Amino acid sequence: MGLLVALDRPEPVSQLSGLVDELCGAVDGFKVGLPLVLARGPGVVHRLRSLCPRGLWVADFKLADIGYTMRLVASTVVDYVDAVIAHAFVGVEGALAELKDMLDEKGRRLILVVSMSHPGSREVMDKVFEDLLSIASRLRAWGVVAPATRPAMVRRAREALGPSVKILSPGVGAQGARPGDALCAGADYEIVGRAITGADDPLAAAEEVRRMQEERLREGCGS
Amino acid sequence: MGLLVALDRPEPVSQLSGLVDELCGAVDGFKVGLPLVLARGPGVVHRLRSLCPRGLWVADFKLADIGYTMRLVASTVVDYVDAVIAHAFVGVEGALAELKDMLDEKGRRLILVVSMSHPGSREVMDKVFEDLLSIASRLRAWGVVAPATRPAMVRRAREALGPSVKILSPGVGAQGARPGDALCAGADYEIVGRAITGADDPLAAAEEVRRMQEERLREGCGS
Repeated sequence: MGLLVALDRPEPVSQLSGLVDELCGAVDGFKVGLPLVLARGPGVVHRLRSLCPRGLWVADFKLADIGYTMRLVASTVVDYVDAVIAHAFVGVEGALAELKDMLDEKGRRLILVVSMSHPGSREVMDKVFEDLLSIASRLRAWGVVAPATRPAMVRRAREALGPSVKILSPGVGAQGARPGDALCAGADYEIVGRAITGADDPLAAAEEVRRMQEERLREGCGS
Repeated sequence: MGLLVALDRPEPVSQLSGLVDELCGAVDGFKVGLPLVLARGPGVVHRLRSLCPRGLWVADFKLADIGYTMRLVASTVVDYVDAVIAHAFVGVEGALAELKDMLDEKGRRLILVVSMSHPGSREVMDKVFEDLLSIASRLRAWGVVAPATRPAMVRRAREALGPSVKILSPGVGAQGARPGDALCAGADYEIVGRAITGADDPLAAAEEVRRMQEERLREGCGS
């Protein structure tokens, strides 16, 4: 049962440091978003990670470019994270294959977006969902991103990819999914942002998410 | 006939400043990439633009996230650029519609990637190319990105979108397309990166690209 906290907003580094320090141990890790890293510089990832080195740290830039450019972008933070998120839809040749090679060399993991949490994900991405899953298989990605807001996508990803691939599910909280929805569908980690980071008491909010996750699982995932 | 220079690599600001200063007037504008802005901070866009204010400045972060996050990212540079590039792939509802609203409010333009220059673009994106074009139409995007390396995609984009939508074509030079290939297929701007920015004499290289573009067009685009 996993819980990652999304750090996306460009809050002051002192505030984020306090948050990471408080939540470390209560959650499984942190997902660092592009708005934050653009505003504060890649060094912020190093600084935050040093406050909670054993957590799982994921750089969520949703990379979607040619290999050359994705490698340049990933290189700015690769030393401070365990995994990097890119979009499966850009394809393997000349794109994800090059990123994967670089991450392999660095001992880092590739996570591919195969479906997203917003309604627009149905417009195009859903039509090629099986292709996106197949790219994740071909590349032996460590994990995929599939939305907690649509548990059927999580269930299908688990079925297609087998038990060893990690599934990370955003969309819990502000975007509408309940804690436990994605875990019940087969996800390994639920990603919560504003519902924890924007709470008056982030630690209490994280513990409440944990409690709800446990409750759902204990109840056998009935709705 | 248009020529944009891609500034992607995180070179020292002094070197980039010299480059922009030298090329301003000889090219139509600049595309600023994520590796550069991540490494040097969003302020670098402001600084470079001040050296060539009348050029077309495009932020090329290949945004591909939910609307909330794309808006946060775009807000870091929106005051310094004329246009922002996002992926049509993520769809309208909860994603591109929100970004478009923000850009409209700011008087900035949306450019959508509908096809890419690397071979992997055939694996998934080609299958939904018509959907991506249709998203560009629905959103009234100012422009689209389609690859100079595959002029048939440029031709189809022009046919589907009509004469008023701008087409920007990367892939000229290092990635294999010749100057003029995309213009002959209906593009408005060719985007050249390393073949100009990595040249011993970037101004001479840009002038040579211009000369080759003109020659292709003058010869009626025969191959």
